[in-house]
Amino acid sequence: MASSTIKLTIRGCCQLCFDAGGILAKCSAGLSACSSSYRNMSSNRYEPSAKTEINLLVTPIEEAERFMVDCFKASGTPQKHAEIVAKNLIEADYRGHYSHGMNRLDMYIRDIQGGMCDPKATCSIEKETAASALVNGHNGLGAVVGKYCMDLAIQKAKTAGIAMVVAHGSNHYGIAGMYSLQAINEGFLGMSFTNTSPFMVPTRAKKATLGTNPVSLGAPALNGDSFVLDMATTAVAVGKIELARRKGTDIPKGWAMNDKGELETNAEAAATVGKLMPLGGDEINSGYKGYGIGMLVEIFCGILSGSKYGPHIRKWGAHGDVANLGQAFIAINPQCFADGFQDRMSDLMGYIRNMEPIDPSKPVLVHGDPEKIHMEKVKKDGGLLYVQNQHDTNAKLAEELKVKPMVSKKPS
Amino acid sequence: MASSTIKLTIRGCCQLCFDAGGILAKCSAGLSACSSSYRNMSSNRYEPSAKTEINLLVTPIEEAERFMVDCFKASGTPQKHAEIVAKNLIEADYRGHYSHGMNRLDMYIRDIQGGMCDPKATCSIEKETAASALVNGHNGLGAVVGKYCMDLAIQKAKTAGIAMVVAHGSNHYGIAGMYSLQAINEGFLGMSFTNTSPFMVPTRAKKATLGTNPVSLGAPALNGDSFVLDMATTAVAVGKIELARRKGTDIPKGWAMNDKGELETNAEAAATVGKLMPLGGDEINSGYKGYGIGMLVEIFCGILSGSKYGPHIRKWGAHGDVANLGQAFIAINPQCFADGFQDRMSDLMGYIRNMEPIDPSKPVLVHGDPEKIHMEKVKKDGGLLYVQNQHDTNAKLAEELKVKPMVSKKPS
Repeated sequence: MASSTIKLTIRGCCQLCFDAGGILAKCSAGLSACSSSYRNMSSNRYEPSAKTEINLLVTPIEEAERFMVDCFKASGTPQKHAEIVAKNLIEADYRGHYSHGMNRLDMYIRDIQGGMCDPKATCSIEKETAASALVNGHNGLGAVVGKYCMDLAIQKAKTAGIAMVVAHGSNHYGIAGMYSLQAINEGFLGMSFTNTSPFMVPTRAKKATLGTNPVSLGAPALNGDSFVLDMATTAVAVGKIELARRKGTDIPKGWAMNDKGELETNAEAAATVGKLMPLGGDEINSGYKGYGIGMLVEIFCGILSGSKYGPHIRKWGAHGDVANLGQAFIAINPQCFADGFQDRMSDLMGYIRNMEPIDPSKPVLVHGDPEKIHMEKVKKDGGLLYVQNQHDTNAKLAEELKVKPMVSKKPS
Repeated sequence: MASSTIKLTIRGCCQLCFDAGGILAKCSAGLSACSSSYRNMSSNRYEPSAKTEINLLVTPIEEAERFMVDCFKASGTPQKHAEIVAKNLIEADYRGHYSHGMNRLDMYIRDIQGGMCDPKATCSIEKETAASALVNGHNGLGAVVGKYCMDLAIQKAKTAGIAMVVAHGSNHYGIAGMYSLQAINEGFLGMSFTNTSPFMVPTRAKKATLGTNPVSLGAPALNGDSFVLDMATTAVAVGKIELARRKGTDIPKGWAMNDKGELETNAEAAATVGKLMPLGGDEINSGYKGYGIGMLVEIFCGILSGSKYGPHIRKWGAHGDVANLGQAFIAINPQCFADGFQDRMSDLMGYIRNMEPIDPSKPVLVHGDPEKIHMEKVKKDGGLLYVQNQHDTNAKLAEELKVKPMVSKKPS
């Protein structure tokens, strides 16, 4: 693997973002991002007093994808499935969600090697109507199950107007937004939901019972523009607390709680306990609404599909049993509703983007804009900027799996 | 109208709840409620040092409904439509959401009298597939439009598994949960969404652009039990800020902002400005997620239906133009998915309800439980406890519309 140390001045960003597995779209402050368009936007940013020296290499998207396909194939994954999962992980990195991209490659490979996931499994339909289906993922790769289900939902929605497909027997399926994007590519609205290992503590309770249970909605607008909401239903993801811990800063009230059920502001303690609060935070700030949306996701995923659900899902990091996650996918054909859908989408999004911002350096955005900014950066950089520890992990994988190492280069 | 002054000791509750238009299910503290089951549960409760003297009358549900039906009929509403709207408002009161019940009667009557709403209008279907429909509400009563649309969605979902109906040309449709309950009564999952007048300020912006845009999901469980989420996508409703203003207390950070875009904690100022923050609050606490769910509601309602949307909806209280609201309804037939849906619902809800609470006096609840507690109270009371100003408004309406006054009685 080619490697070179270059000097790069990182302004308005923090070293922790790099340590955490990549140049994150969202900074440890939860507000800013490392992409150039977002620099200097954080209210709580790290201001290095001197230039920061970091190993930075550019990996062309095609090469990163090639490497992941090779790793999956070398682990017994059929070519078609390997391509689906690699494209899924690449999309996350391309959009700036590095935590859900190549960062997961090692974990996925270990799951396959440990027999916790069957990379050869294909989906089967157990029940079906004109607008619905119940799918058995047979413990296949989550990305494969998800793509199959959203494809099916889109096909049904073409004539039915809306369709819902739910799956059991699935695994981690990457970013929830992946499947909304799949629908957008067909001119449809797309939603996806997945349950996850317990992290969220229901309002008034002391124990984690629901997952971060993400939900995504994507909707197409004019000229290739789109709205892409992709959010965990907890106040923040685990990673944000982990970053604050490493940074040594406190976390705001409403992100996490301790074992006694008190609001935890010490990041070290919060990261150790791992009890996330629902979106909204505590009860006075309507955390029961975030808890409610988390329940909605669980009802659509675990309860409708018959997979594991809520407290019955294995703990994060526990790999002694198959995950048997539940996932739900909805496709909506806007042509079955009022004409001019994309015109109205563009009008609303344009109106909001043009609103006067509180801080002139922080433009008002719609959901999907931070990702678009990151994608432009990737194009400008000529590829993805993985941090050194990702390159190290890849080198070990390449050696172990006997695949051609990932070739990266100095930024031009 | 019979009236009598009785002495009642209100513990753990506040006078403001009564002033605000009823015995609220949720107290001004945002946590507790006035119903007996919730007394002494508030962390910020009003503790009267002496017994509070309040005019309290019990109105049997049937009599409250009769009175409202008579008022609507006397204003030119056909019998069938009058019954639908009255049942809608009664359901809100019965569930403890007094702000959305008979409290709205006067406003609805004025809208009809002012020609802002056509009480005779019936819905028509403009587009239709096996699982979808676009409905024109022809500026009819929102409750009539909503019931029609959810009925249609349920019919379609019986064979299609899922169905989505969106409407334009509608008006206020009451509590979003009304339509989820309609689906639950058929053993289905139900969702409903409506756009509303601008109140929510998108993250980073300074101006209200989206409504409180509520979303509801209802799902049936065993033995008549159910999950009913019914929430605004703003951090709190306008009413909570209004109550804090009257109480003279500050509001938590994250509920509202001022014209400069700063977090507002002065309830008086917040109530005057009327700029609500999305669920989550400011950006550091993921308010962009609440803003995203608000956008989801707007996309399903205004953008899919072709009604007014976002900043184009008339301001709250402005009645110079018809509302032309958009609404969306989804019904899901659980029989089209994995067998045993209600068993799993009951298992999950039972697990959560039995979790150890942080505070032993505040049990862990699932969505719909506060309403169930209130309904039990109504049964025990023998009817609904409206405050004096509601009785006063009713007396004026009865005189003006020449209908039989609402008959209430002393509590037994």
